[in-house]
Amino acid sequence: MLRLSVLLFIAPLAYAQSGEIRAVLTHSEEAWNRGDLAAFASYYEDSPDTTFMGREVVHGGVQAILARYRKSYPTPEAMGTLSFTGVAVRQLSPEIALVTGQFHLARTTAGGGDASGRYTLVFRKTAAGWKIIHDHTSS
Amino acid sequence: MLRLSVLLFIAPLAYAQSGEIRAVLTHSEEAWNRGDLAAFASYYEDSPDTTFMGREVVHGGVQAILARYRKSYPTPEAMGTLSFTGVAVRQLSPEIALVTGQFHLARTTAGGGDASGRYTLVFRKTAAGWKIIHDHTSS
Repeated sequence: MLRLSVLLFIAPLAYAQSGEIRAVLTHSEEAWNRGDLAAFASYYEDSPDTTFMGREVVHGGVQAILARYRKSYPTPEAMGTLSFTGVAVRQLSPEIALVTGQFHLARTTAGGGDASGRYTLVFRKTAAGWKIIHDHTSS
Repeated sequence: MLRLSVLLFIAPLAYAQSGEIRAVLTHSEEAWNRGDLAAFASYYEDSPDTTFMGREVVHGGVQAILARYRKSYPTPEAMGTLSFTGVAVRQLSPEIALVTGQFHLARTTAGGGDASGRYTLVFRKTAAGWKIIHDHTSS
């Protein structure tokens, strides 16, 4: 009965938090698609411990993450149009969530052509909302 | 002062848990290098929620993870000699840890040649010890 009570308490909480995190992903997609990399980078935690792992690893806060995106996607054509699919949110604790999914970039040939791959995001609930503390993206 | 007391309590705990997780990584390296894929796969949580994300995604417990490794590394030559470097352990809660690092496979040409890449592992502390609940590996 205690277990059931706990479940009844936790299940709606996890559902609400999953909704919050999915909203962050939607907002970050929208930021990307209006060319606003600063807003896109603002969804990462502004901490020296934040990591972006691609072929290389970037350590650092929002400015370091933003610099990496500006270097890799210098023009609107290189940014293309981003969409996320197959998003799964796993709540690991009240303050930690593991998110996996696929990204797709629709781009012109001049922009580098279409690209896609998979990502793992670890989110932490901070005073400023859910923030990405680690991003592993591979294509 | 309360913060300091909390830190004094948590810091040694985090250090001890990081040691336990590093020991799991060392044991999994050793299992690989003696050709024992079943032992290597036993460090994943035996749950349908466990995920291995490479080019494709495997969902499932130890048997699903093991089948994926057996398919990708069918011979001792294909397995080669595994080593992990640059391992970083971040304790996210008493029961969740985020681990990043690089892997290197030293292999003969017949085995496919040397290979290397990066990984993100999410560990959960279970009754059976620290287990991998998500692995994202890319080369």
